[in-house]
Amino acid sequence: MKVNETPIQVRYQETDMMGVVYHANYLVWFEIGRTSFIDSLGFKYAEIEKEGVVSPVIDASMSFKNPVRYGEEAAVKTWVKEYDGLRVTYGYEVVHNDGETAVTGETKHVIVKKDNFRPVSIRRSFPDWHEAYLQAMEKTS
Amino acid sequence: MKVNETPIQVRYQETDMMGVVYHANYLVWFEIGRTSFIDSLGFKYAEIEKEGVVSPVIDASMSFKNPVRYGEEAAVKTWVKEYDGLRVTYGYEVVHNDGETAVTGETKHVIVKKDNFRPVSIRRSFPDWHEAYLQAMEKTS
Amino acid sequence: MKVNETPIQVRYQETDMMGVVYHANYLVWFEIGRTSFIDSLGFKYAEIEKEGVVSPVIDASMSFKNPVRYGEEAAVKTWVKEYDGLRVTYGYEVVHNDGETAVTGETKHVIVKKDNFRPVSIRRSFPDWHEAYLQAMEKTS
Amino acid sequence: MKVNETPIQVRYQETDMMGVVYHANYLVWFEIGRTSFIDSLGFKYAEIEKEGVVSPVIDASMSFKNPVRYGEEAAVKTWVKEYDGLRVTYGYEVVHNDGETAVTGETKHVIVKKDNFRPVSIRRSFPDWHEAYLQAMEKTS
Repeated sequence: MKVNETPIQVRYQETDMMGVVYHANYLVWFEIGRTSFIDSLGFKYAEIEKEGVVSPVIDASMSFKNPVRYGEEAAVKTWVKEYDGLRVTYGYEVVHNDGETAVTGETKHVIVKKDNFRPVSIRRSFPDWHEAYLQAMEKTS
Repeated sequence: MKVNETPIQVRYQETDMMGVVYHANYLVWFEIGRTSFIDSLGFKYAEIEKEGVVSPVIDASMSFKNPVRYGEEAAVKTWVKEYDGLRVTYGYEVVHNDGETAVTGETKHVIVKKDNFRPVSIRRSFPDWHEAYLQAMEKTS
Repeated sequence: MKVNETPIQVRYQETDMMGVVYHANYLVWFEIGRTSFIDSLGFKYAEIEKEGVVSPVIDASMSFKNPVRYGEEAAVKTWVKEYDGLRVTYGYEVVHNDGETAVTGETKHVIVKKDNFRPVSIRRSFPDWHEAYLQAMEKTS
Repeated sequence: MKVNETPIQVRYQETDMMGVVYHANYLVWFEIGRTSFIDSLGFKYAEIEKEGVVSPVIDASMSFKNPVRYGEEAAVKTWVKEYDGLRVTYGYEVVHNDGETAVTGETKHVIVKKDNFRPVSIRRSFPDWHEAYLQAMEKTS
């Protein structure tokens, strides 16, 4: 299974008055991990949208273990957890500098037409991407 | 079971280039619903933090059914789904103007000391709040 | 001069580790004030965009006097400061509950076509809105 | 004059339904540029806060020339524009990949005690930082 790791520079704006990163921001970090993962497969999510489709999240879950603070160097690990040709579930782990887990989670996505949000089969409409997903699930990173 | 409903005015800033509310913002709307729910129990979350504790999220999950768009009037319904004296799980439903479900989800919280993030028992340290939670779970709204 | 006042409920998400509202969020509050001001003129910004135009900010300035904190009730006052048929400058004052000034600022906007960002004359393309701006500048609120 | 340049990876979350980066997010990019600039002087803003002070923005202005879009590679250039031992004004220029200006702006900061927001002299309390600012203004980068 291919795992992509992306460094995250904590923004002051991402903290809250608890003195730690506000919980919803980890979902944004998942987005950064996902974009980087797709890049590492040789695709650009921005290019995919130019074909008139978007890839909304349909389910998300997160488990918060240990908060990240401003000034720390964190990273997000991303991989494909499940994929059936139509829906893809990414897994994530945000880690502290010392490797300790900060947050784990997953997001499930579909591809839909931008104008009417009707589902599109990745297998049929994006065969290269389909192949890349299958390989990413098998590959030992 | 007590259910609190809070109107949400969609901010332009909350939309993304998909033309809908960016998914992580619904977690912020859950926060708004939770704050309003706590208000409706007669407490102020801001006052609780003045006692040196904070209430981080330890788990969250969301299911996205139907995106909310700018210009729409939405609302978030909030209730207490589970509570054991130590951890509280809130349930949420974001609804469109016509009552249709936009997003459902839940967040689980604990109370911890602000300076060291050590857990605090709600039952023992905040008995009034404890009682209010128990009543909120029983009450027919 | 017409001045519109909109209450603001501070979101926990809007705070930072300084314990106050993160400065960039006041620009979002200005957006809320502006939307509410346009509503008070009898228009809906969301409807205007359906005609294929958008209204980007071309200049903004802010002066931070006294930070707003979570749990406080704040409000944003909005008015039209300058208008020449093409460009409109809104003035803003964020006030604390006791009327003290928190932040002042202004944003200058144009109307452009959504597809190519070419400028559109408000005077010629949106005569009703043009009239409303002129009246808003004269009116004693 | 020392000018520091920091690459910016546009986040999908930073876009709005206009299809471009939401204007308030450039203030966050300015924060990223400022943090990187301070790093380049050999300091860490996160360490400075551990001494019980924070550095709020007291004035900000921005001029939006040309919006940045998702998928683009942008950068923020940062320098010290004015400094008098007490207040520092940073200048910023967000540039597109081809060097074209996207946004220009500046932010003015003071240093205050975290607990009471009383001003602190940089010259007297942070002499090393004071020296670094003076050099940054003279140096040809």
